[in-house]
This record gives sequence, C-alpha cells and structure tokens, in this order.
Amino acid sequence: MSIRLYDLAAADERIRFSPYCWRIKMALAHKGLGYETVPWRFTDKDAIARTGQGRVPVLVEGEQWLHESWDIALYLDSRYPDRPRLIPEGARGETWFIKHWSEAMLHPVLLRLIITDIHAILAAKDQEYFRTSREKMLGRKLEEACTDRADDLDLLKRALEPLRRAVAGQNFIAGNTPSFADYIPFGTLQWTRCVTTYDLLAPDDPVSHWFERMLDLYDGLGRSAPRPIAHQGA
Amino acid sequence: MSIRLYDLAAADERIRFSPYCWRIKMALAHKGLGYETVPWRFTDKDAIARTGQGRVPVLVEGEQWLHESWDIALYLDSRYPDRPRLIPEGARGETWFIKHWSEAMLHPVLLRLIITDIHAILAAKDQEYFRTSREKMLGRKLEEACTDRADDLDLLKRALEPLRRAVAGQNFIAGNTPSFADYIPFGTLQWTRCVTTYDLLAPDDPVSHWFERMLDLYDGLGRSAPRPIAHQGA
Repeated sequence: MSIRLYDLAAADERIRFSPYCWRIKMALAHKGLGYETVPWRFTDKDAIARTGQGRVPVLVEGEQWLHESWDIALYLDSRYPDRPRLIPEGARGETWFIKHWSEAMLHPVLLRLIITDIHAILAAKDQEYFRTSREKMLGRKLEEACTDRADDLDLLKRALEPLRRAVAGQNFIAGNTPSFADYIPFGTLQWTRCVTTYDLLAPDDPVSHWFERMLDLYDGLGRSAPRPIAHQGA
Repeated sequence: MSIRLYDLAAADERIRFSPYCWRIKMALAHKGLGYETVPWRFTDKDAIARTGQGRVPVLVEGEQWLHESWDIALYLDSRYPDRPRLIPEGARGETWFIKHWSEAMLHPVLLRLIITDIHAILAAKDQEYFRTSREKMLGRKLEEACTDRADDLDLLKRALEPLRRAVAGQNFIAGNTPSFADYIPFGTLQWTRCVTTYDLLAPDDPVSHWFERMLDLYDGLGRSAPRPIAHQGA
C-alpha cells in the first residue's frame, strides 16, 4: 500500500524544513519504506482536515490518516514489525525523554535564531500566517525575537552538551546504528540547515560530526535536501 | 556471594549523599540483591586503591572490584540476567544520553546551590580536601560558588523541563516501571535531599511528584535516608 506524507514546504517547494517531518522522512528510510511527499504550506489546513488538526507531518496509508510524529513512529513500528525498529523494545520511555529534551531545550533558542530566515523563504500566503501566529506566541515582532544573537548561540552550545557527550565515543545516540532517538534531534538541526545559508555549529564540535554522519545516512537523504541560496552580499 | 558497596558518608555516617552511589543503591534494590555498605569518606583513598582510582561507588563481589556507576549497572545486568534489567535491551544508548543530560545540565547548577551545605556536613578530615579540590575546580571560594541564588534556582527549573514533560503523563521516565534512566536523575536530586534541610523544587512541580514516587520505591529506600537536621534559627 502506498504511503503519502504531507511535508511542510517553502515558497520553493523543494525546500522541506519541518523538524517533525524530517523525523518521519528518516523513519521511513530507516524502515526501508517507499513514499511520496505532498508539499504542504502552513495555510493548507483543508488538505489535512481529516486529521482534525492543522499540522504536519500527516502520513496517509490506505484509509489511515495519522498525525503527530511520535504517533506515526509508533504506527510504523507496529505496522511493520519485521523491519528495523525505530523505537527499540524497552527504549520507549527513554526516547520519549529525548524528544522532550530536544523540544524543550533546543527548539525555543533555535526558533529565535532562525525565525526571520524561516519567514523569508515562506510562500507569500504563509508569511502573514507565520508572522501573526509566531508574534502572538513570542509576544514580540519576528525581527526582535532574538535580542542577543551571541547569547543565544552560547545558550544553544550549552544546551547541546548532553548530545555532545553522548556521541563523543559512539556513532549515534542509540549506539552503533541510529534509531528514532537520533532522528528527533537530527530533525531539529536539519530544520535549521534547510532554512539558512550559514551554519550554527562549529565544524569541530562533536555534535557537528554526529550531524554529518546523520546527513550521510540513506544515501545522503538529509545532505541532498535543498537549502536556500546565499545571495551575494547578503 | 555477598556484595559490598563503598558509599560516600558525611561526618554522621548515616548520611549517605553521593548521587552516583544512590544510582547503585537503587539499582541493587531493583535487582533484588542484598548488600552491605561501607561508609567511605573522600579522603579514604587507600580503602579503594585496588580500583586504581579514588571515587565511589565501588562495588565488591568476590574477587571483583568495580567502579563507575555506569559500569557497575552494566555488570549487574550481565551478572544477573534473570533479574529485572536495569538498562533494557535496546535502551543503552538512550539511557547513556540521559546520564549525560543529568550530569551536564543538572549537576553544575545543583553543586553551586548546595556546595556549602555539603561542606558543612562533611567529616573534619574531608572538609579541607573538599574545599581545596572544589575551589580549584570552580576557580572561586565555596561561599562564592553561587553568585545569584534566584538565578540558579530559575536555571535549575528550566534545566528540569525535559524531565517535567516526560513524566507528566507517565509514572517513570522508563514508563510504568522505573529503570536506570530513572535512577540517574533520582540520584542527582537525592544528593540534594541528603545534604540539605530545605527543598529546591516546588511541591506542585511534576518533577516533585515523580521524585516522591521514586522515594517510595523499594519500601521507601530513598525516603528513609537520613538528612541533616535543621537547627532552630538556621
């Protein structure tokens, strides 16, 4: 049965930047499952109305419409038990913790750092939606989200310390081979990679080495993802 | 074969406060293994010289002398495979990450907050050792470790957010039953409980609710641990 994934896209529909959708694209590759993506914009609420909510990833297989990346990962492990597990037996709670670590400690500071980059690449119809919803959430203008960039970069570096230590002596968070515990923070950093023309991490940071290994997985699935083009003088 | 655990003690040898030793006391209870503890002070290097290093926990079983709480946990799972696993199969990397989260994000701020409380309860022979080694590590006097207590309490609260979210909907980090992934941050918070006469967390914090559940485990092993006595007017 074919799998369809609604995948957040920029104005240039080749740019797919949702951290949550990246978790699922890596998960589908991990499972060795073919799929097609449907480029989706923040304002395309009707296209996924059947899920009763308004965010992607949304995965459709036959009559099944699934949303929430965590629930989609559990679905894939349950539907395809003979393929490599995304969340190993016995590691569900620990992976759940890593999801919350990534979302609580990395997402807020990264959002501040890249929020104007995101806005800049969105489809015109999404830009007002994004500005209004995010300015309401942050309580300030997008352009004022990051009050001290050096401070936020330092905060990011410190927030990544558990990941830095965990992968200093092994290839992946999960060990020798990656699992959903890796795809979660990978999605977070891939989000920033797909909306920026610059790097947020130092190349000699062990986190960068881990991220490079993640970019190489599945024939360079992450590495081949289109990014915005840096304009001269920008 | 009997198990002996060298366990960091205060001047009052009933007060056992090492976060790393608490991991192992919970681990031994999880495995249902009997053991005796040997009260050990920072300066009792000779007693554990056989391990080639100077820190506890040190676990002795027959001719085996083990150190490093992580390695002791792996040893117990390997030596007693028929008893409940501490680190579930497939969750080793994810638990390793949680260990680094606890040590990188919680230990430094907690050490600043309780460092003078620790010093106050130490055996006289340990006090100078502790002051010298920690002042060298911090680059300042113990009494100046915490430059802004309100700031550090706020930092602690924010650092605990992944744990807070993870246990908001389930009893333990590992799920319905605890595992070593729970004993690690438990040890961290039990360290503070065993050296202070006050609480660092708000009672309505979901982290406190999780910690209370942890204190109840194994007939209240953690809850029954002696703490310093608050002096009137202190």
